Amino acid sequence: MSASTLRAEHCRPLKGPEHRLDDAALGELLALLPGWSLREDGRAIGRNFRFDGFLPALSFASAIGWMAEQENHHPDLELGWGYVRVRYATHDVGGLSRNDFICAAKVDALADAAG
Amino acid sequence: MSASTLRAEHCRPLKGPEHRLDDAALGELLALLPGWSLREDGRAIGRNFRFDGFLPALSFASAIGWMAEQENHHPDLELGWGYVRVRYATHDVGGLSRNDFICAAKVDALADAAG
Repeated sequence: MSASTLRAEHCRPLKGPEHRLDDAALGELLALLPGWSLREDGRAIGRNFRFDGFLPALSFASAIGWMAEQENHHPDLELGWGYVRVRYATHDVGGLSRNDFICAAKVDALADAAG
Repeated sequence: MSASTLRAEHCRPLKGPEHRLDDAALGELLALLPGWSLREDGRAIGRNFRFDGFLPALSFASAIGWMAEQENHHPDLELGWGYVRVRYATHDVGGLSRNDFICAAKVDALADAAG
């Protein structure tokens, strides 16, 4: 598997702890996404992006929002002058699911698209 | 003074601790802005807004960003499905300045404009 396979996937509705990824799966998926790291004792993943200003950060958040609506899977964002911090977790599985990594790969694709 | 006077003001460049508001001024300004409260031991103010979805939250963040650019004074935002948390502080004074309250009043004006 590669980051580009992950980018091409789409989120699907996942509910219940059986869709929570185990440590081996987490390690495999994280290895595909440099810049992303585990947060909150492995219950979330996050990546921080830097920008030169407030509007570039807000614009990137808008791009993420556009993608998030398509996937119907939404991140938590922190943003301000010069930064966006993206966090994904899947509430319905009580931790991380494959959907979080699909969306993380798509966030990277958005960043690359304008980079 | 009223919230509408505050809304009509504009931020001006403030640098140095002499522009940091004292407790009396903080109390007076906070009383004009129901919903806003002190954060971080009085070094910041914040207000949380609720929405029914991710895009409404992101749209509100965009409206705040539009205003923030006009005032050249930018908040820190946290947003996700159903919420936006707004935080203002003035780095250059090491705490809260009048600019933070002017912008807080303008955030309320944006919320009211669509309410």
